[in-house]
Amino acid sequence: MAIEVLFDHPLFRIEGDGVHTRMWCRDWVNVLPLTGDGQAVLIRQPRFGTGTETLEIPGGIIDPGEDPLVAAQRELAEETGYGGGAWRSLGWVHPNPAIQTNRCFLFVADGVAPIGPQRLDPLEDIAIDLHPIDRLGTLVTEGAIDHALVVLAIQRWMLERATTG
Amino acid sequence: MAIEVLFDHPLFRIEGDGVHTRMWCRDWVNVLPLTGDGQAVLIRQPRFGTGTETLEIPGGIIDPGEDPLVAAQRELAEETGYGGGAWRSLGWVHPNPAIQTNRCFLFVADGVAPIGPQRLDPLEDIAIDLHPIDRLGTLVTEGAIDHALVVLAIQRWMLERATTG
Repeated sequence: MAIEVLFDHPLFRIEGDGVHTRMWCRDWVNVLPLTGDGQAVLIRQPRFGTGTETLEIPGGIIDPGEDPLVAAQRELAEETGYGGGAWRSLGWVHPNPAIQTNRCFLFVADGVAPIGPQRLDPLEDIAIDLHPIDRLGTLVTEGAIDHALVVLAIQRWMLERATTG
Repeated sequence: MAIEVLFDHPLFRIEGDGVHTRMWCRDWVNVLPLTGDGQAVLIRQPRFGTGTETLEIPGGIIDPGEDPLVAAQRELAEETGYGGGAWRSLGWVHPNPAIQTNRCFLFVADGVAPIGPQRLDPLEDIAIDLHPIDRLGTLVTEGAIDHALVVLAIQRWMLERATTG
């Protein structure tokens, strides 16, 4: 059966085939940015989904045709004013293959530093919040960081550290 | 501004306040079930979001008023026919606080065994797939498991093992 658009929104579409329903989204990206002196560049912002303020790593939506790494570097610069550093991929995941079409690409950037001012969208309200990298695991286990895609990136980085020493 | 329902579906609702939009969902649950002889009870199923067959751990939607642990035990029994074992919580996360209202509760169950037949919903098509627990990390890094909430639960269990020996 053909796929029909049931609800259209600038950031996603609800699609169905008469039996199943799903949310079409563009691919997403996030990055764990680490400074040369052992700080993680985290962000605080109000989130409408949960109605709470969250502590997250920078990220966002990949523009059409944009390379995931370029998107991650753009989002980091826009949301925090940080840039530079040595970047590497932590792979990608499907945020939810049951009901979403898209992927989320994960990066870590070592040695980022301030390079300019934040450039926020009109609806964004983002505060920069530096935390020592050795506290990231505790922020997750204590629930201060609870966004699944952020937790996943931090856990992947922690597992990498645990196995490489 | 009041929150309005913009699109209604049995499994979710799209809600908006005139500026922001979000997907209301019931809370979810998943469980990493491990047998006494060192196998993880994984499941394979076609997923409409991505249009692919996925390898996942069992899980689903928590019924209204249902305890998350009870829901996880019910989903494990329905989807695989396995039960029993020693259960413990791996905490919970917000699948996506930016655009979703709900939480996902995570469990691990040690020492599960077959207790009855699968009981699948009419739209479910689930095959049971046992994998040695020492292969779980590789299944994730090789991309055979790519559902973010499944990856997150496995990583959390691996980090727990890495720190407790």
